[in-house]
Amino acid sequence: MAWTQARRALGMNPSVIREILKISAKPGIISFAGGWPSAATFPLEAFEESCAAVLRDDGRAALQYSASEGFEPLREMVAASLPWQVNPADVLITTGSQQALDLLGKILIDEGSRVLVETPTYLGALQAFAPMEPDIVGVNSDADGIDVRDFASKADGARFLYALPNFQNPTGRTMSEARRRDLVARAQDTGVPIVEDNPYGDLWFDVPPPAPLTARNPEGCVYLGSFSKVLAPGLRLGYLVAPREIFPKLLHAKQASDLHTPNFNQRVVARLMESGFLERHIPSIRALYKAQRDTMLAALQREMARLDVTWNEPAGGMFLWVRLPSGMDAGRLLPHAVDNGVAFVAGSPFFSNAPDPATMRLSFVTASVEQIDVGIAALAKTIREHQGAK
Amino acid sequence: MAWTQARRALGMNPSVIREILKISAKPGIISFAGGWPSAATFPLEAFEESCAAVLRDDGRAALQYSASEGFEPLREMVAASLPWQVNPADVLITTGSQQALDLLGKILIDEGSRVLVETPTYLGALQAFAPMEPDIVGVNSDADGIDVRDFASKADGARFLYALPNFQNPTGRTMSEARRRDLVARAQDTGVPIVEDNPYGDLWFDVPPPAPLTARNPEGCVYLGSFSKVLAPGLRLGYLVAPREIFPKLLHAKQASDLHTPNFNQRVVARLMESGFLERHIPSIRALYKAQRDTMLAALQREMARLDVTWNEPAGGMFLWVRLPSGMDAGRLLPHAVDNGVAFVAGSPFFSNAPDPATMRLSFVTASVEQIDVGIAALAKTIREHQGAK
Repeated sequence: MAWTQARRALGMNPSVIREILKISAKPGIISFAGGWPSAATFPLEAFEESCAAVLRDDGRAALQYSASEGFEPLREMVAASLPWQVNPADVLITTGSQQALDLLGKILIDEGSRVLVETPTYLGALQAFAPMEPDIVGVNSDADGIDVRDFASKADGARFLYALPNFQNPTGRTMSEARRRDLVARAQDTGVPIVEDNPYGDLWFDVPPPAPLTARNPEGCVYLGSFSKVLAPGLRLGYLVAPREIFPKLLHAKQASDLHTPNFNQRVVARLMESGFLERHIPSIRALYKAQRDTMLAALQREMARLDVTWNEPAGGMFLWVRLPSGMDAGRLLPHAVDNGVAFVAGSPFFSNAPDPATMRLSFVTASVEQIDVGIAALAKTIREHQGAK
Repeated sequence: MAWTQARRALGMNPSVIREILKISAKPGIISFAGGWPSAATFPLEAFEESCAAVLRDDGRAALQYSASEGFEPLREMVAASLPWQVNPADVLITTGSQQALDLLGKILIDEGSRVLVETPTYLGALQAFAPMEPDIVGVNSDADGIDVRDFASKADGARFLYALPNFQNPTGRTMSEARRRDLVARAQDTGVPIVEDNPYGDLWFDVPPPAPLTARNPEGCVYLGSFSKVLAPGLRLGYLVAPREIFPKLLHAKQASDLHTPNFNQRVVARLMESGFLERHIPSIRALYKAQRDTMLAALQREMARLDVTWNEPAGGMFLWVRLPSGMDAGRLLPHAVDNGVAFVAGSPFFSNAPDPATMRLSFVTASVEQIDVGIAALAKTIREHQGAK
């Protein structure tokens, strides 16, 4: 048969992370690779109660088709949970926030459209946008986030800037208050909309991060949120908040993509939110992840301070960012690390251009504190073994 | 702000069905409009037991991220349930079969690509393909399905034919054995792949429909199935079976779209399938829908035989297809029908070209038998009131 593929399909290739997750699924490997929440935080009992209650109280409605916009009480609770004035009518429930990226790509990106991203940026966003064939342009970024002057110099004709200001994936960094203020002002000056992705914002350790970009200019931003990190990713439940100007097109793209997000899942989570469960639950995730971050920082200090390796100290989220001695290549190191029983993700695939091969992303939430100590020691051993060979 | 939309967004408009569902959601309206399964068939108890069992036995895995391909045991059971030799590795679990249409559009349709569809065809497929800007070409069709000669005359350069051979949406018709044999042979001759959509195939009333097109030529077909009509649409659970040649691209598109279909939902349904629940459950849906079809046919005969209205007698599924006296316009009749307490979907939006304004789709599964009698009488009254005005 003649299966002629679309041109856009030529650029679709297996995700690097997918491949690495296969490696790190080998028995006995301690994995710092995946961005998987700690399964210890999943509230099994509360979830079972909520499932049963939804089925008993309104089960037939929960299992039926429903509105593409999402379950009305959930939209209302999402709107009420956000730190600026949000109308529930502007909330669209999505099948994970990954779907929000797909929908935005569909309605905002033409072939060759300029899309600005951080350096480095979330790989899943690059994958979601890729089928629409954008011209991805990386904006310089440092430990405080996006370099606003570089942003302005690249703003001309850009369809939007994609930014993840809180505990970013992959670096774990957080955009400072001053940077946020400057960025939003410059985006308004240049007329460039911002897509703000905030899956990790609730996972702060000591103090909450500064206010979202969207709170400062709701008409010029789309905001993406998720229940994956505060409840459970296996539900595939996220949302977006969009200005009226583009909401109807996003809704239509949503309907064409999967009709609606599973109604049952929406109602189960709405029930949990109604009971105030999240307010009690999220602090326990923060405490756990903070302890695991501290363990990893201590292990890095103990094992790698003398190896010319550097790392940052994220104030929340799931990841930290490591730079190997310059000249060393994290991608080439990986198979040797796996031989020594530990996996990570090399940083290069997260760069839209000019990758820094010495970088790597470490997740501190999937492995236990005991595993973190063993895994960081194994990683240090691997680095020592290869420092001569760099 | 300057929200510049993609060109493809210009063609995205609210679905006609969406608008009609809003009308028919008015209190007191008997609706033959939506393609919604009877909520009476949803197995609440079995579902609650399955949720609890999944959470107790392997809850943390059920709530975690998982493979984009789908839950392995579910892929195996889907493969085993199909009436030809299917390798589980060729099964991709999707977020409803609507998502399968979206993924196929992404990897197979370039701007201007010729895509062949039945006349009339499933509106949701047209919506799913539209963002990729195909050139949709309608193939003549009659009560037995696709006109194979017309198909062959339009085959040149077509990326694929989209067909729904069993109890089609919107017409309820079924493609005959002879037609299937001819169509598959001609598709092989002309090298045109077939996308076979089969959400209703299990809902036969007296005898099963002929073997799927895909069973006759798996390398030249993608097959789409769904749990929405045999279990519950609120789960958003479907699947596709694709040849190795295009499976990796579909998988990649799936990953970029929503990472994976909700893992919890997949495991709950896998658990139900393992227990043999579907084999016991589906015959009860068949019996219910057959009784409702019979009620609607009898009501049509009683109320409309003298009105110069014609209809078909579907052998399964959820819909039947009505043609008003020629010259009458179903779309113009609708608001008057709603005034009389009954709603339907006009046939025109289901035609990719040359719509027949006298046609309408009636669902016989959402309303009860009592409502069907009342609703068909109200529809007949509306037609009588407007026959002079045609």
